Amino acid sequence: MNKFTLLVVMLMCFAFAKAQKSTIVQDSTILRTIYNQNLTNSKSYEWLDHLSNNIGGRLSGSPQAQMAVEYTLNELKKVTDTAYLQSVMVPKWTRGTSELAYIQTADGTQMKVNVCALGGSIATPANGLSAQIVEVEGIDDLEKLGKDKINGKIVFYNRPMEATKIQTFDAYGGCVDQRYSGAAAAAEYGAVGVVVRSMNLRMDDFPHTGAMSYGDLAMEKYIPAAAISTNDAEKLHGELEKQTDLKFFLKQDCENHGEVESFNVIGEIKGAEFPDEVIVVGGHLDSWDLGDGSHDDGAGVVQSMQVLETIKSLNYKPKRTIRAVLFMNEENGLRGANAYAAAAAQKDQKHILALESDAGGFTPRGFGFDTTPTQMQQINSWQPLFKPYLIHYFEIGGSGADVGPLKDTGAVLAGLRPDSQRYFDYHHASNDTFDAVNKRELELGAATMSSLVYLFDKYGQSKKLKK
Amino acid sequence: MNKFTLLVVMLMCFAFAKAQKSTIVQDSTILRTIYNQNLTNSKSYEWLDHLSNNIGGRLSGSPQAQMAVEYTLNELKKVTDTAYLQSVMVPKWTRGTSELAYIQTADGTQMKVNVCALGGSIATPANGLSAQIVEVEGIDDLEKLGKDKINGKIVFYNRPMEATKIQTFDAYGGCVDQRYSGAAAAAEYGAVGVVVRSMNLRMDDFPHTGAMSYGDLAMEKYIPAAAISTNDAEKLHGELEKQTDLKFFLKQDCENHGEVESFNVIGEIKGAEFPDEVIVVGGHLDSWDLGDGSHDDGAGVVQSMQVLETIKSLNYKPKRTIRAVLFMNEENGLRGANAYAAAAAQKDQKHILALESDAGGFTPRGFGFDTTPTQMQQINSWQPLFKPYLIHYFEIGGSGADVGPLKDTGAVLAGLRPDSQRYFDYHHASNDTFDAVNKRELELGAATMSSLVYLFDKYGQSKKLKK
Repeated sequence: MNKFTLLVVMLMCFAFAKAQKSTIVQDSTILRTIYNQNLTNSKSYEWLDHLSNNIGGRLSGSPQAQMAVEYTLNELKKVTDTAYLQSVMVPKWTRGTSELAYIQTADGTQMKVNVCALGGSIATPANGLSAQIVEVEGIDDLEKLGKDKINGKIVFYNRPMEATKIQTFDAYGGCVDQRYSGAAAAAEYGAVGVVVRSMNLRMDDFPHTGAMSYGDLAMEKYIPAAAISTNDAEKLHGELEKQTDLKFFLKQDCENHGEVESFNVIGEIKGAEFPDEVIVVGGHLDSWDLGDGSHDDGAGVVQSMQVLETIKSLNYKPKRTIRAVLFMNEENGLRGANAYAAAAAQKDQKHILALESDAGGFTPRGFGFDTTPTQMQQINSWQPLFKPYLIHYFEIGGSGADVGPLKDTGAVLAGLRPDSQRYFDYHHASNDTFDAVNKRELELGAATMSSLVYLFDKYGQSKKLKK
Repeated sequence: MNKFTLLVVMLMCFAFAKAQKSTIVQDSTILRTIYNQNLTNSKSYEWLDHLSNNIGGRLSGSPQAQMAVEYTLNELKKVTDTAYLQSVMVPKWTRGTSELAYIQTADGTQMKVNVCALGGSIATPANGLSAQIVEVEGIDDLEKLGKDKINGKIVFYNRPMEATKIQTFDAYGGCVDQRYSGAAAAAEYGAVGVVVRSMNLRMDDFPHTGAMSYGDLAMEKYIPAAAISTNDAEKLHGELEKQTDLKFFLKQDCENHGEVESFNVIGEIKGAEFPDEVIVVGGHLDSWDLGDGSHDDGAGVVQSMQVLETIKSLNYKPKRTIRAVLFMNEENGLRGANAYAAAAAQKDQKHILALESDAGGFTPRGFGFDTTPTQMQQINSWQPLFKPYLIHYFEIGGSGADVGPLKDTGAVLAGLRPDSQRYFDYHHASNDTFDAVNKRELELGAATMSSLVYLFDKYGQSKKLKK
């Protein structure tokens, strides 16, 4: 290398470093603006107040779900010119009157316990179901016990979430098979019902509902399934240690009503430069019926709407199309997500990022990504921009149920990762209510989502990836 | 370098790498054990339950503070052979009967507002104080207004905490001068009382107390000082916009009672190898009187006790002396911290780490350190060990009030940094109660403290530092 070449190379390096530095400065200024806007002028908390307190629990097919569709469509129309509905058929299930359950001891004592029907379960006979109860630690135990010991009995699934898992979703993943598939499995052994320990790390009196499925089971073999609070699961366990032939009474009159029409709600801001490249941000509009679904997933809904509101308020003109999708029926069918992905595939729409918030409105810690290591290099290069906001978690693994079906579009899939310690205190229970959401934590989540959207809008996917 | 030398160097590198790797493996196993123990067998939550629900608010000099001294001493005796008291004189102040305040509009309407006396304030006259009220944004505004506009009036300090600060303690630091020094400053301009907007980022009805000082003011010039809830600060601001000569009524009968004896509570486990090198972990036993002081600082107290309990339960034999210090009177005097540091200096005790938990029992994010960059290199080398626990914050800046006086002992000063978003929702208010603390979040904090203590115990301070 002669002196002249060296000089040219040095000058290029200098110019590049300067340009790069100024880009970083500009990005960091924009992120600061995004966070300031969200912490001082966000609409998210007000929207959540309405969804939670004026509408309430929004189970698929319920009047409240329809109210939520209309409300969010109307609010999105205030934020963008382009807001519309996407029709989707969803299962309708109703809880009916409050459930009743008690432990019946040999001396005739009835100890009332807190239960709730699992979503999708059938009712008990009108006068309730009374049978001997047998405790297991999981589905695998059924085979060990065998039909003789299960036939005619209620099966009590009592494997708790593991307290030592730092990420509580891992503890949930290690237990939820009991709730989802426990009834179908136990029915094959002649069980007449199942009671499942609530997916909750805390000891308290709230039963936690959630989806269950009878799988391939013939309909005449369906058995009722309920969740029991963690305190009462311990109580039941204790009574079973004293008396192995303990009886249990359960009464619930929930009902499956087939399918009804509902909607995804979509709002978008068209991209100025690459309008055909879509960035999706989403949460799910439906919730369980016991609480008002503030954390699951009112938070994700209003944060997704807030991403558009932030863009509008800051008068930012995105290069790409930014689309908020409020999915219907995540909880018990994923019909909205599948319908959205099918429509996107049919129109051959190019999605570059699909970001979901469905882990509660708690302090954001970062994102889980479903993408390639090469793409992660680009994402990791943005980490310093997030440091002032204490956003530190950028890892492969875990995006979200509603964005999963968009994998084939080539999108980077991502899930906001809020602090997870308190999530399962509220998840699917009657205490998942507005007062359990902190305004700042909710707003920081929306700001963090908006920031990732800004960066993907500006830079697109990794160029390396496209080679 | 000849071939033989090269071989020797390569072998040394290999052996060192292997030893270092195995050390890391060992440390990571021990941290895993510490976290598991804390998440499954901790005593911290049970201790906090007692402190909060059986004892309650523990203001210095109160019967509850004495009960807390006796309870924690007794519990520490169960954990270690060496537990003792350290006598300290503390100021005693009592709130008396509940405060009363209202806005008096020109048409005679009285609008009741939520206030509480600031700690250390004098009472109003027995029939209360009624005067015109003037709003300022801070102490600097007094000079701008001048004596003419302040004399005979109540000064209303209404500068809010800045919502855009990500670390809420920074927002607190930007406002708290109004509470601490606002009365003394306003008295110099002839004010007859002060009302200060609560140090709270949330809009709600809780007034937040906290320490205030009259500084060098002559005692006959003392004026009463109270905090007003954020909602009512906004209401008062709104009324002042309508009517500038608005009057305000305040009645409180708090009282200063001079000094009384109290105690720091200390428990320790002697070091096997370097018993003269002390590692301190601490929180403060006193609290304000409105709530039960669960976050501030019941959490720090039980986490510090839990560090000793963890060491004992795991049958770990520390090299250095591990000492839990439950400081008395952090809130309104720092007498306990100063007494402890003075005694340590007198005995010329070598302290290598002084770690405080006084920022609430929320999910831990890391530590703030007051130490040298060289020492930070050692600390930063431990960061990967903490990653599985989502502990990511290791920064210079901010340790804690109670460990501050230990700076001269040569100790690395450190403060646990929990997530700060919700802290000021509860700080010094009647809602700082046991139910606001999440068991797992509290336990993760104690595990994180225990882990740092383990590493400092094993490795001591940076060798580089000692050169």
